[in-house]
Amino acid sequence: MTSLISIADLATSQIEGLLDLASQLKQEPGDRAAGRLIVPMFFEPSTRTRMSFDIASARLGANVIEFDPETSSAVKGESLRDTAQTVGALGPDLIIIRHPRAGAPEAVARWSGRPVINGGDGRRAHPTQTLADLLTMRAHFGDLNGLRVGIVGDIANSRVARGLLDSLPRFGAEITGIGPPGFVPRDLPWDMARTTDLDSKLGELDVVYLLRVQKERGGALAYPSDAEYHTRFGLSEERSQLMKPDCVVMHPGPINRGVEIAGSLVDSERSLILDQVSAGVHVRMAVIASIVEGLL
Amino acid sequence: MTSLISIADLATSQIEGLLDLASQLKQEPGDRAAGRLIVPMFFEPSTRTRMSFDIASARLGANVIEFDPETSSAVKGESLRDTAQTVGALGPDLIIIRHPRAGAPEAVARWSGRPVINGGDGRRAHPTQTLADLLTMRAHFGDLNGLRVGIVGDIANSRVARGLLDSLPRFGAEITGIGPPGFVPRDLPWDMARTTDLDSKLGELDVVYLLRVQKERGGALAYPSDAEYHTRFGLSEERSQLMKPDCVVMHPGPINRGVEIAGSLVDSERSLILDQVSAGVHVRMAVIASIVEGLL
Amino acid sequence: MTSLISIADLATSQIEGLLDLASQLKQEPGDRAAGRLIVPMFFEPSTRTRMSFDIASARLGANVIEFDPETSSAVKGESLRDTAQTVGALGPDLIIIRHPRAGAPEAVARWSGRPVINGGDGRRAHPTQTLADLLTMRAHFGDLNGLRVGIVGDIANSRVARGLLDSLPRFGAEITGIGPPGFVPRDLPWDMARTTDLDSKLGELDVVYLLRVQKERGGALAYPSDAEYHTRFGLSEERSQLMKPDCVVMHPGPINRGVEIAGSLVDSERSLILDQVSAGVHVRMAVIASIVEGLL
Repeated sequence: MTSLISIADLATSQIEGLLDLASQLKQEPGDRAAGRLIVPMFFEPSTRTRMSFDIASARLGANVIEFDPETSSAVKGESLRDTAQTVGALGPDLIIIRHPRAGAPEAVARWSGRPVINGGDGRRAHPTQTLADLLTMRAHFGDLNGLRVGIVGDIANSRVARGLLDSLPRFGAEITGIGPPGFVPRDLPWDMARTTDLDSKLGELDVVYLLRVQKERGGALAYPSDAEYHTRFGLSEERSQLMKPDCVVMHPGPINRGVEIAGSLVDSERSLILDQVSAGVHVRMAVIASIVEGLL
Repeated sequence: MTSLISIADLATSQIEGLLDLASQLKQEPGDRAAGRLIVPMFFEPSTRTRMSFDIASARLGANVIEFDPETSSAVKGESLRDTAQTVGALGPDLIIIRHPRAGAPEAVARWSGRPVINGGDGRRAHPTQTLADLLTMRAHFGDLNGLRVGIVGDIANSRVARGLLDSLPRFGAEITGIGPPGFVPRDLPWDMARTTDLDSKLGELDVVYLLRVQKERGGALAYPSDAEYHTRFGLSEERSQLMKPDCVVMHPGPINRGVEIAGSLVDSERSLILDQVSAGVHVRMAVIASIVEGLL
Repeated sequence: MTSLISIADLATSQIEGLLDLASQLKQEPGDRAAGRLIVPMFFEPSTRTRMSFDIASARLGANVIEFDPETSSAVKGESLRDTAQTVGALGPDLIIIRHPRAGAPEAVARWSGRPVINGGDGRRAHPTQTLADLLTMRAHFGDLNGLRVGIVGDIANSRVARGLLDSLPRFGAEITGIGPPGFVPRDLPWDMARTTDLDSKLGELDVVYLLRVQKERGGALAYPSDAEYHTRFGLSEERSQLMKPDCVVMHPGPINRGVEIAGSLVDSERSLILDQVSAGVHVRMAVIASIVEGLL
């Protein structure tokens, strides 16, 4: 009955074990969650994460039970506690939760009495995205040790960035935060280099990890317009000439073509963006299998 | 090809058989509906009932096929008859229907030519909720005979109350309807005691069954405000002191904490509310298995 | 990795093979897509087509993975290309797509790298509807050769009509287009007779195929009102007296009772409308099985 709330909760050896299992399940899915019932509770819509969990569940033989927050009693004013207790009493084997509020996953685990996978809670954590990113880098480079990773964008508000900051340094990778000062503030508690000058840093990086410009979360004050952002921090064709030949591009999606990255680079040889999508399915299979088998 | 429309249609021995089967399936789900296709047609949204049926279906090995009334031809003006005939022609093994109009389930059974489980039709019936309530009481008390049950709330408009009134007396339980006169009118055709004085009755009851205050159905005229309702008919901490030590609290959910019941009592030892949720899955498994096996 | 985009892409022998397989799968579904993952991407809502594909998938043992365009990144401005590439990278075995734009299915097949079934693209094609229509006629008449089929309605804007025009003549059937001139224009590239006089043609037909009056697509200019349309082109009880005794009525649904057809005729012995619905499941099973087994 263990849950996965944040990558920070996992020992380094546990992360490695999950990545190894993901690689193995990619080859042989098996039927390791056959007959298990999984309830995704997505209080924020997310087609890609939701589908990735659904496909991972189906590949393992599990059944996905629909929970629709739009029609749930939550909209009639039921508390998250009552919703979680009710779902728990229905007897599923696993709950996956995405919620705008940091901390909701632990609360749901406690109230429901069921294991929970955090599918993203506010700005805090999104551990299966982090595992997908790590698996993608490891598969491409063979080793994470010594890798120089630049994260470009609104690091302060990004659970994706936090996941990388909570894990990559443990494997010997070095992170540089790149963006306007409002996006990479001094007071973040992680060990990383900082710069506002993307061009001068690009030539040193092995990985350029571009964050999505979250138009809906109002990072708008940090830069005047999408065009201006693209000029200063977007990975344009021209700017990409500064990259090392073997430097790769990553992005958690969905992409704003022409804002954080030029469309042509999304589809170039440098892009690992679709590898991240595929890896997402495999790490979610690994996490689900580990939890239902009591291995986590 | 038998349907379950109302608890009143079942012989007492059939109800007992379903409760026995539910207890058995709780222990060993088996795969008694393997490969069967079940279509839930929910013309009124209901996450908890819908999920309960979905989980019951999955536990028996059945496949649930999505029917979305929002995008169905019904919104383009297609009649319920044409919708039901079309769904029937698609060849599912079982239809579950929730509909605001009493009588819709029989009509859908006739038009579709498929067995139907009524998941709630207007104010009339919700037989699997009734079975869940009966199973919960039987599991807790061992026997329904002689049980004194008080139903508190808008009995006139509650299909949940009607299900209890149509079944509990057959097992030797005694029912008292409690609420303002508009909620427990004289002309209801059931054999029950009536009172507007909750406090004087509480000490005699084995079960206090609280109905949800249906803000959306406009029982508003019977009492001036939620606070007023709570004062006169809500189960507060103070009022609960009047209950017998072994008296339990039931509620079909979703709960309005602080209106019909104090939040602390929802989570107390007296509460069988989550037992009702769990029992709901088991009785739905029993009904589905009985119908697809032709045993009902 | 072959896709089904349009009935025009299939050789006549392939159509016959699919109809034969559909008849066979109706009797013995088997488990020919066991464990396969199918993603329906419906950018236009359609309960009946969607349910038909879902039931066909389930009957073959496949898993259906939900894709919700309402919550997908498409609404955040993601291009169809990025959506398709992402879904492809998730690794499903088959995509079913309905899209308002003709040509979207081929594009999604190319971008996703997955086989695609066109579930309707704009006015262009809806090949599984066509196969269902052909199977229904073949099952009823034994042979399509020499069959005289009248298609009544807005042929110019109907993918259903186009599918019949692209296939029936190959089997020796003769088609007459019937409707106001704006609905059956001279410049359509198919070999068919044309008339605006339904009454004088009715007595010669073996099949009256009524198209749905698409109120939402604005064929409104071709006739002044629904009542007027019914008077001139609707199949009324009175007008049906002109039909040959063994002439049948078909309609792709959903039906506007009292506009293109009298309600009593929908439910009459002449109607093959529900046969079309049932046949739809069987031909979709045939197409899915053929694609996942690499037989198409």
